[in-house]
Amino acid sequence: MKPEALDWSVENCTIGRAMAILGERWTVVVLREVFNGVRRFDDMRVRTGIPRQVLTNRLAALVEQGVLRREPYREPGARVRHEYRLTPMGFDLWPVLVAVLAWGDRYLADPEGAPLSVRHRDCEEPVRVALRCAAGHEVTEPRDLVPRPGPGACRRVD
Amino acid sequence: MKPEALDWSVENCTIGRAMAILGERWTVVVLREVFNGVRRFDDMRVRTGIPRQVLTNRLAALVEQGVLRREPYREPGARVRHEYRLTPMGFDLWPVLVAVLAWGDRYLADPEGAPLSVRHRDCEEPVRVALRCAAGHEVTEPRDLVPRPGPGACRRVD
Repeated sequence: MKPEALDWSVENCTIGRAMAILGERWTVVVLREVFNGVRRFDDMRVRTGIPRQVLTNRLAALVEQGVLRREPYREPGARVRHEYRLTPMGFDLWPVLVAVLAWGDRYLADPEGAPLSVRHRDCEEPVRVALRCAAGHEVTEPRDLVPRPGPGACRRVD
Repeated sequence: MKPEALDWSVENCTIGRAMAILGERWTVVVLREVFNGVRRFDDMRVRTGIPRQVLTNRLAALVEQGVLRREPYREPGARVRHEYRLTPMGFDLWPVLVAVLAWGDRYLADPEGAPLSVRHRDCEEPVRVALRCAAGHEVTEPRDLVPRPGPGACRRVD
């Protein structure tokens, strides 16, 4: 039986486009740092061990793609440097990071548990991702999700 | 001001570990195919244009990491082949894919809109990721999320 998905083009796939930005191990690690409040090049270097040139490239790419922005700061007696902050597009990656974190915690954590916990500022309770449909139903079973062609779906041309 | 995150080790970071699996553009594209019901090597090849050897390697890695499993099938007159199916660990990536998709759709879609829509099987309404804390509050503002050391957090050793 031929899967229905084969009828559709993946040319304009937004998962593909998102992963062209996120799909590199260090990129998400850099984003994790910024979400954690680590915004300066040297601090990121120390924490992550990412080679200097790789980190420079990642940060430049994330700025160019609109996920981070550079903000000048100046320590006393030092030259002006820049720190990296999330743009609104960057902030909207929170659900992606929380979802990746939950999956990693479930399957890949050490016996002691997760090193990081994302919490709600008001009540300090842990935050989780949930799936919910537009009619308000909770979607807890993976099999209750079905992929359908969206408004921008294109028939595949052989 | 020194960010508090700098006190903590990222050695056991589960985002890092998750991205060591997912952090490669083609890997998530392969997963998208399987979630879409495209399970066979040749179909994936046709849809994605991933080079044969790269696709072979990605699939082998995903099987080894426990995200996919191989299941034999046999077309009439042909030799036994394998298709790739999600394990429970793989199915649990749904929230990650839905979150990546939502972000991609918001910032990276063509003017016609998203090519793919994930829907609730029962009512066919679109499904979204939501963030909710354990006390039941909806968390809609990115700034309402705060990262905290988890049970497995380790102090960083300089």
